Amino acid sequence: MTDNRPTAQATADEAEIRALIAAWSKALEAKDAAGLVADYAPETLLYDVKPPYKIARPDAIRKMWEACLPYFPDRFTSEHRDLVLTVGTDLAIMHALHAIHPVGTDHPAADMWIRVTACYRKTGGRWRVVHEHVSVPFDPTTGKVVHIREP
Amino acid sequence: MTDNRPTAQATADEAEIRALIAAWSKALEAKDAAGLVADYAPETLLYDVKPPYKIARPDAIRKMWEACLPYFPDRFTSEHRDLVLTVGTDLAIMHALHAIHPVGTDHPAADMWIRVTACYRKTGGRWRVVHEHVSVPFDPTTGKVVHIREP
Repeated sequence: MTDNRPTAQATADEAEIRALIAAWSKALEAKDAAGLVADYAPETLLYDVKPPYKIARPDAIRKMWEACLPYFPDRFTSEHRDLVLTVGTDLAIMHALHAIHPVGTDHPAADMWIRVTACYRKTGGRWRVVHEHVSVPFDPTTGKVVHIREP
Repeated sequence: MTDNRPTAQATADEAEIRALIAAWSKALEAKDAAGLVADYAPETLLYDVKPPYKIARPDAIRKMWEACLPYFPDRFTSEHRDLVLTVGTDLAIMHALHAIHPVGTDHPAADMWIRVTACYRKTGGRWRVVHEHVSVPFDPTTGKVVHIREP
């Protein structure tokens, strides 16, 4: 998306969004619910991996995190894989696979890769998440989730 | 996203993307696999509702449609609900719920609402899909899909 724009601006935009993604990962590892939504715009709509099928606004997304972070392992690392980021003039799109890797323990959430699409909007010179979609596929013949192994 | 751009251009961009969405629905109702990917860019990556967890490029997406369209009802209508479209200068983001409604028959796929995120990019003056994410949530305690009823 850099063809019509100054290279310096495109580079700065991409660096800023990659920093948001890294900060999100750090907040997850720290179980910091407020940090996880620090860069979400007021209009954000999340399609989460589990019900409810939609969560609107950062406050509600933060509450979801507060409810589920206690079920995460004590210590883990957060990894994105196959991340593709497309940065436009005022919107950006990221898709990737994401997993957590527990440190020094076993955990049912370990290595469960999920698909993430995050969409960003630049407002007042600042990039923020405006939409996120997180999921795993399912088998229509059984109604059961089909986990993504070693993508 | 119209604050920094001519209103006429913003209006034209939004109309063009809404026309793509309408054309996709018509192609689905007609079981026209080629039509379903007619407006997909070569780099499109689809996270589909069922395995495989990712499908890259329009040709592979068309083949997926060719394989599954025979399982659709003979006649049905395609509906998007709660559609939100954000149009930027060179990227656009749409999220919505989608279902098919069989005409004159019963069918297991009827009224199964799914979440759709579609991302568009303007290249050479033309808007095309570059990424799509389609899913339903699941219950982590059972591993089963949780269907979205009457959203």
